[in-house]
Amino acid sequence: MKLDPKFRYVDHVGIVVRDLHTAIAEFSDVYDLEVELEEEIASFNVRLAFLQCRATDQLTTIQLVQPLGPGPLSDFLDDHGEGLHHVCFAVEDIPLTLGCLQGEGESRIFRGGRGRNACFLANRPSGITIELTEVSD
Amino acid sequence: MKLDPKFRYVDHVGIVVRDLHTAIAEFSDVYDLEVELEEEIASFNVRLAFLQCRATDQLTTIQLVQPLGPGPLSDFLDDHGEGLHHVCFAVEDIPLTLGCLQGEGESRIFRGGRGRNACFLANRPSGITIELTEVSD
Repeated sequence: MKLDPKFRYVDHVGIVVRDLHTAIAEFSDVYDLEVELEEEIASFNVRLAFLQCRATDQLTTIQLVQPLGPGPLSDFLDDHGEGLHHVCFAVEDIPLTLGCLQGEGESRIFRGGRGRNACFLANRPSGITIELTEVSD
Repeated sequence: MKLDPKFRYVDHVGIVVRDLHTAIAEFSDVYDLEVELEEEIASFNVRLAFLQCRATDQLTTIQLVQPLGPGPLSDFLDDHGEGLHHVCFAVEDIPLTLGCLQGEGESRIFRGGRGRNACFLANRPSGITIELTEVSD
């Protein structure tokens, strides 16, 4: 089957937090979101949690990210405090999509959350950090 | 049918932009998102566009917001520049949901984008501005 380079859907919204368990408690206790997965991504020195609305069959999740040490996310926390960090779109094949994006150079593809290949785009339209995640569903 | 107070799904991610048409052009030309709707919300003094991934049956959209004059969104632009502003969750009934959220006071319900009732929550977990939008689907 021919792969499609288009953005398929908004996979998640990434939120940088100071303490993952405090943030998980608030989002689950107060807003009743359900924790799908919690994991550490060693290459990025972060701990992640993905939270999902309970009353949905939709795929878009909230990703909470706690920096575990120095790095770009720790720098973000120092500069901006906790808050919205990026929007991630699901694609079928990252190199294919990158090849179709005007003005995008090479981006480092890494093993991101949920064992998926991912990358951050170099361009930041309207100041937005965009991540791509590769999905097969 | 009994209404459910839970957050149903991520309805949209709100991005404050300086110029709506420049931002629409970038998101549609470069990232191939499709403009679903463009409209002015007089009560908020903003112009909005909702953009959707083309290769999806998912409901989460990207909302671009240009302030048209003084107001909280214009203040945001002055303080932070363009960027991610809020996450909006779809609910069935805003007053019902507000009544179930611990520690939330009253929020002003207004006629938001796409003719729907909406409100911003007073509490900002992890520094996040949360909007609710009322959907019947």
